[in-house]
Amino acid sequence: MTILPSQLMSDATRTEQCLTSVFGKTADATAPRLMEAMAYSALNGGKRIRAALVLGAARLAIATAKPDLSDVEEGFGDEGQGSLRVAAAFECLHAYSLIHDDLPAMDDADTRRGKPSCHVAFDEATAILAGDALQSLAFELLADPLTHADPGVRASLVVELASASGVNGMAGGQMLDLEAETRALDMDETKVMQAMKTGALIRAAVRSGGLVGGADPALMTGLDTYAVKIGLAFQIADDILDRQASAEDLGKPAGRDAEAGKASFVDFLGMDGAIDEAAKLAREAGEALHATTSYSTPELDYLLELASFIIRREF
Amino acid sequence: MTILPSQLMSDATRTEQCLTSVFGKTADATAPRLMEAMAYSALNGGKRIRAALVLGAARLAIATAKPDLSDVEEGFGDEGQGSLRVAAAFECLHAYSLIHDDLPAMDDADTRRGKPSCHVAFDEATAILAGDALQSLAFELLADPLTHADPGVRASLVVELASASGVNGMAGGQMLDLEAETRALDMDETKVMQAMKTGALIRAAVRSGGLVGGADPALMTGLDTYAVKIGLAFQIADDILDRQASAEDLGKPAGRDAEAGKASFVDFLGMDGAIDEAAKLAREAGEALHATTSYSTPELDYLLELASFIIRREF
Repeated sequence: MTILPSQLMSDATRTEQCLTSVFGKTADATAPRLMEAMAYSALNGGKRIRAALVLGAARLAIATAKPDLSDVEEGFGDEGQGSLRVAAAFECLHAYSLIHDDLPAMDDADTRRGKPSCHVAFDEATAILAGDALQSLAFELLADPLTHADPGVRASLVVELASASGVNGMAGGQMLDLEAETRALDMDETKVMQAMKTGALIRAAVRSGGLVGGADPALMTGLDTYAVKIGLAFQIADDILDRQASAEDLGKPAGRDAEAGKASFVDFLGMDGAIDEAAKLAREAGEALHATTSYSTPELDYLLELASFIIRREF
Repeated sequence: MTILPSQLMSDATRTEQCLTSVFGKTADATAPRLMEAMAYSALNGGKRIRAALVLGAARLAIATAKPDLSDVEEGFGDEGQGSLRVAAAFECLHAYSLIHDDLPAMDDADTRRGKPSCHVAFDEATAILAGDALQSLAFELLADPLTHADPGVRASLVVELASASGVNGMAGGQMLDLEAETRALDMDETKVMQAMKTGALIRAAVRSGGLVGGADPALMTGLDTYAVKIGLAFQIADDILDRQASAEDLGKPAGRDAEAGKASFVDFLGMDGAIDEAAKLAREAGEALHATTSYSTPELDYLLELASFIIRREF
């Protein structure tokens, strides 16, 4: 664990700088209040795990494509100019989903990361529109020529994000999660729901990093398996965290799923079983990446450490 | 007025067929209730003016590019395979905006085109998610290789739609419109608000038709001017309609803007002045197109007739 803390912070900081420059001076916007609400939610801290996954995968793809890997083993590789914009797009999409999830008609959460959620800090109509406009912005960022010279890559990035966000991805998963309040899901159904609700965006982030970094098919397959494994590990870790933590620790209301009668992976597997399963998934994620290369590079290590970080986080 | 009625109906019908095939059998979706809500709103009739503008502009671009225009003067030209998907994408985006506009926290409208609005027919959470997923779907349609062989065109289509929908377009305009309930806008401010709220999407529809049909720069300039003019004419016509019509005619609550203390173009210009201004804009829109070609083709006539139709509609 040597690369992770400083690089994760660097990735988060630079993604936020990219977002800040995209939002510009919010007061100068034609609709300043809306821009302010978008910036409020998109720049509300967080670990920026999706951004780190985009950047980490892009760096691994670029490093792997170098003719002589010894060239890059010493320093920490470049992620390419456009990757930060891709990372920023994923954070915009994620921020939109949090704004809408927090709405009174959805999870009705008044706080997010210890601050008033968007509809509390502004109002409900503004929050709905801020989420909507952050979704549009994510696609605008991806499709813009500044993001990648090859329009084929840009169009593929849009397809990745759009399919991960829509009815067969994040939005569909959120729908199934809401329905779980009235009809209990079994473990397999919960896995499908979570793979859509949070897994799809994590998977798309890793795959998009691979795309923008020019990953070859073998690496893309490895990245994809890695992403699916950490996506599920992430959710199991979230369930463990939710059971252990107080609202103060989380910065948002805790134990809400249990209150709503929803079963979590901790219910299905027990606390020890859930911790073991998350660890197993993180290990398998690492093995999938190791299978794609015989070299060990800082770029590879970062993704391995991210997998471990995702299951450690606050516990 | 010979081409319009049958072609407008054909364009609407074929766009709806495209949408129907995209939604598939909603019961087979992983999140069937969400897919059902999306289909409910996207297939809720309407004149499909945005689809007609996409298809009309695509056909004009294709006809104009033919070496010998006499080849196409007899029949009605082809709009190309992918244009229907572009038209469907614009209708998805438009449907999402109507779902979110109708929400209790926004315009709080219980009916839409004479039927219960999405949050009444389903529930508020489902309506929020259906709008969100329809936005994702619009971008997925545009970026998919089936839409156009050239990824540069697909990426440009995404940029057009994303910038027209976001904080500097539709969502920003809706924000300004909501703010107008507490601070009256003057006519210039109203024009800016409307250009964002409804004009941007109309403009993007016409431009996207041009893009997918391969319009040259001169035609694209003509199409752009046409689009800006009819976008404003559309809104003035809407204000006239809102003042004249009953809720039954509109299929949605009437006179809501006046109730909310918002000034409309009818207030600024008077009823006769508003009707004259809309007619002038429609005429200028046609002149902008005529300036790009010395031929008169059915493809050109369709766009001219659409401009007249937009200001006639129900009055």
